[in-house]
Amino acid sequence: MFRVKARCTCGPRQPFVSTTIERRAPGPRDVHIAIAYAGICQSDVEHAHSTRGKTIYPLVPGHEMAGTVLAVGSEVTRHRVGDRVGVGNMVDACRRCDNCRAGLEQYCSGGRTLAYGVIGADGQPTYGGYSEQVVVDEAFVVAIPDAIALQNAAPLLCAGITMYSPLRHWGAGPGKRVAILGFGGLGHMGVQISRSLGAHTTVLDITPAKREDALRLGADDYRLSNEPDTFTVLDSSFDIVLSTVPIHADLDRYLGLLALDGVYVNLAVASVPLSVPAAALLTNRRSIAGTRSGGIAETQEMLDFCAAHGIAAEVEVIAADDIDAAYRRLLAGDVRFRFVIDNQTL
Amino acid sequence: MFRVKARCTCGPRQPFVSTTIERRAPGPRDVHIAIAYAGICQSDVEHAHSTRGKTIYPLVPGHEMAGTVLAVGSEVTRHRVGDRVGVGNMVDACRRCDNCRAGLEQYCSGGRTLAYGVIGADGQPTYGGYSEQVVVDEAFVVAIPDAIALQNAAPLLCAGITMYSPLRHWGAGPGKRVAILGFGGLGHMGVQISRSLGAHTTVLDITPAKREDALRLGADDYRLSNEPDTFTVLDSSFDIVLSTVPIHADLDRYLGLLALDGVYVNLAVASVPLSVPAAALLTNRRSIAGTRSGGIAETQEMLDFCAAHGIAAEVEVIAADDIDAAYRRLLAGDVRFRFVIDNQTL
Repeated sequence: MFRVKARCTCGPRQPFVSTTIERRAPGPRDVHIAIAYAGICQSDVEHAHSTRGKTIYPLVPGHEMAGTVLAVGSEVTRHRVGDRVGVGNMVDACRRCDNCRAGLEQYCSGGRTLAYGVIGADGQPTYGGYSEQVVVDEAFVVAIPDAIALQNAAPLLCAGITMYSPLRHWGAGPGKRVAILGFGGLGHMGVQISRSLGAHTTVLDITPAKREDALRLGADDYRLSNEPDTFTVLDSSFDIVLSTVPIHADLDRYLGLLALDGVYVNLAVASVPLSVPAAALLTNRRSIAGTRSGGIAETQEMLDFCAAHGIAAEVEVIAADDIDAAYRRLLAGDVRFRFVIDNQTL
Repeated sequence: MFRVKARCTCGPRQPFVSTTIERRAPGPRDVHIAIAYAGICQSDVEHAHSTRGKTIYPLVPGHEMAGTVLAVGSEVTRHRVGDRVGVGNMVDACRRCDNCRAGLEQYCSGGRTLAYGVIGADGQPTYGGYSEQVVVDEAFVVAIPDAIALQNAAPLLCAGITMYSPLRHWGAGPGKRVAILGFGGLGHMGVQISRSLGAHTTVLDITPAKREDALRLGADDYRLSNEPDTFTVLDSSFDIVLSTVPIHADLDRYLGLLALDGVYVNLAVASVPLSVPAAALLTNRRSIAGTRSGGIAETQEMLDFCAAHGIAAEVEVIAADDIDAAYRRLLAGDVRFRFVIDNQTL
């Protein structure tokens, strides 16, 4: 065991403070990583505030980690000292169930280990990327291509894969029409990936001011979801609607966007259930689906795809002292487009 | 124009009475049909009671019609006098939209004409199968194979195709695990079709007494949905769940039945929306879909499939005077498995 610097919060809406946490001594299959940057995800805020289930405190969030390999265990073959690597929201899984064996560890039925906020196989709570270093089994560490700067790569480990996986699974590509609901951390990744996959890509958001950024990142169209006319103009015109925003009560209008066999993929989790009018699904044989991030092999595929297509997250790099302020700005929708902590400032 | 005998209801929960209705003079592409049997669908009851939107009275329900061709127009090529034919829930569609041209008239975006209860292209209300004769464009008339008796064929025109279409669309077949929720008019067709397609087929219902019938019709398994243990035993074990019953508030348990990429197909329409916990969709990348009956070509395919596999509806033939009693029994779940009116008794 060894101790590293970290930032933690000790209760709902308690400020982040400096601390040290224990990391396990690297085993033969472990990769010991110096974390250079850690992205701040909306779900970090929800966990910190204990609004998504019951949080274990002290909490060290962060599941978008980009850094460099400091050391590897004797049996490690995938990564070497000095490699640029990333860790996302899973640091282990059962590896035996059908889903794990199919490379779909995000749907592990034997129990995944999340990067932070859960009790790991060793009986200790997991601590995330708001820390200097982390030790992770090589099977859950991905390589970050040289073409992507580490600070711009960090958010790909959650925001990137969370958009890439459903876009691939539901067949975004030439001839397909994709709508992205919400142009924030997830949405700005979705636009770039969808466009690079060859799909016609439309963004719906409530903010006129984001139009220019959306078009610059590749959107074919940008529409305001708070203008009722939008839903008339776009009626039945998308094959895939990816919702990054928690829409629960007003789904009728959004389902109306779907063409024949269209799918509404909901990425937002909230405490209230989705309210789905059955008739809106009957029309055009529509469906609503859920998706949970992506598997490790697919995360590597996504990083390579992003490198090949010049895609990366647009970030605001902050110092560790500014985490609380960043959370407030994130809740106000004031970020272009992802906060990333410079872990040198821990 | 000519007049034929029919049974109608003149208001919510008003008894059915004898009447006569006008049918149009057959045009060059029309088929003039003597209706031998008309099935009673749950949605007939909902329309009669005006619980599904606002009903136009007097109402002559019936969208499961089986009979014989009396005459054909000069340009009719598909059917001949004396042919055994059926008409389902659509008697026309725009025929120009993408969905119509793809043989998916049930999703016509230009406006389908339903068999009863709507205003047709001629400005007159449509009247359904609780009548002696009907005149329908040949494109919306299907051939009933000789292997299926007319009274057992009538329910195929709605109950049969409503199950066949989603089972085919979502790939029921060898290696797939299908659950049918509810063992009534729709469910008893679903079991036969699913099993004949080669899928492992489980029925969930609240009635122990129906087990024997379900197994006789081909179910591999029969489980009681009001025994909580059922949902533990069957957790994550189906690729397709076809729900013929209106489940709205308790979807969490039912979604838990779905394995990776499983789909819950909801066939029931009700006035309250489905309540869908987002987390239940994220697990196993599940989805919920709607479906609306089937197209004309697929309806013919279904009839031929049923004939080839010895599938038909099990029916109780009733006299027209017993429609009100049949409605009461249907609402009480007391029918094995579909009421069919003998139209000779009109």
